[in-house]
Amino acid sequence: MHKYAIIVAGGSGSRMGGELPKQFQLLKGKPVLWYTLKAFTDAYEDIQIILVLPENHLEPGQQIVKEFPGHRIRITTGGQTRFHSVRNGLRLVDAHAIVFVHDGVRCLVSPQLIRRCAGAALENTNAIPSIAATETIRLETASGNEAVDRNRVRIIQTPQTFFSDVIKQAYEQAYDPSFTDEASVVEQTGVKINLIEGEVTNIKITRPIDLVIAEKILEGLRN
Amino acid sequence: MHKYAIIVAGGSGSRMGGELPKQFQLLKGKPVLWYTLKAFTDAYEDIQIILVLPENHLEPGQQIVKEFPGHRIRITTGGQTRFHSVRNGLRLVDAHAIVFVHDGVRCLVSPQLIRRCAGAALENTNAIPSIAATETIRLETASGNEAVDRNRVRIIQTPQTFFSDVIKQAYEQAYDPSFTDEASVVEQTGVKINLIEGEVTNIKITRPIDLVIAEKILEGLRN
Repeated sequence: MHKYAIIVAGGSGSRMGGELPKQFQLLKGKPVLWYTLKAFTDAYEDIQIILVLPENHLEPGQQIVKEFPGHRIRITTGGQTRFHSVRNGLRLVDAHAIVFVHDGVRCLVSPQLIRRCAGAALENTNAIPSIAATETIRLETASGNEAVDRNRVRIIQTPQTFFSDVIKQAYEQAYDPSFTDEASVVEQTGVKINLIEGEVTNIKITRPIDLVIAEKILEGLRN
Repeated sequence: MHKYAIIVAGGSGSRMGGELPKQFQLLKGKPVLWYTLKAFTDAYEDIQIILVLPENHLEPGQQIVKEFPGHRIRITTGGQTRFHSVRNGLRLVDAHAIVFVHDGVRCLVSPQLIRRCAGAALENTNAIPSIAATETIRLETASGNEAVDRNRVRIIQTPQTFFSDVIKQAYEQAYDPSFTDEASVVEQTGVKINLIEGEVTNIKITRPIDLVIAEKILEGLRN
């Protein structure tokens, strides 16, 4: 079965404050995005990668891709929102395949998690990695706020993984602002979302401190 | 109006793996708990502090308290759960006062936040600091799971702050395992919980990586 990874690295990185989007910043001498591509090419020799880059930052992405000779990595540009970026990427995906949609800045994802996602998606049409909440959470309501049983809370990660026929069909819908991730788009078509256990170390690099945390994780500090 | 802070530092620190509970571990040369006490004594010259310590770790707590001469800091031992520890502490609190209940390991809380909590609790009987969620969240349900609008999600912090009559009355209830924090105990008596804006840097030191993050925050890195 063909495997595709849509790596969404379209962020312009305004939250980092620096000039360079976070996916291109260096982590122990290599760009964040390099680690992400490495995890997927390590997971599957024959995976096809579709890298979604910001239009004004194609060049640093192309440089990173050059470090993966022998792998099929195509570059496409991002859309107006994540929904549009993923839809662009899905145009390059075959029917009857497995598709991973992954945040380019989740660079510490393990090949093991990627393969577990594929296995679970084969059985249930989709697999969404998630971890337990460690914080107390409340939900705002119309009249105030309410407590939530912490045991019910799951923090969602990527790669959100799907049988391609299911996600391609879901992305034929018109865009809706409530689509915050791929699971929410697919769920809208009536598909039941299948949560599987993610990884505490599978963090998203969005703040300067996250680069420090990622470096410590790479050095073996327990997160 | 009298002000009391119940600093809950009763954790045995099993998650850290080391021998010393996290509240006694060093952050730039000072114990985590030292920073916490400093924030409250900086917020109010005349605050009365009730420090809840693990029975088998009274000595390191007493050492830290010695560094705050001229301040009224009493030590009490923790109960079976957080509920019981807080109830122990509340026995030392007067009526018609403001009470802060704070995690001993949230050592980066600012005196400004402490004072804002007091002001808001005076107006609304309680004030619970909280911050916006940056992650996508799902809730497990009886039949699977459901998406939650991220804009409705609030991550709860401490100091959870109350008019003392309100919290003392709430702690006359029998213990219930659904009591995960002080707000949940007080809410059970019909009081409406008042969320106010917390601080992103007001992190809880529970994992080894958190000490690294705290150090970077103290060095001025934007969290």
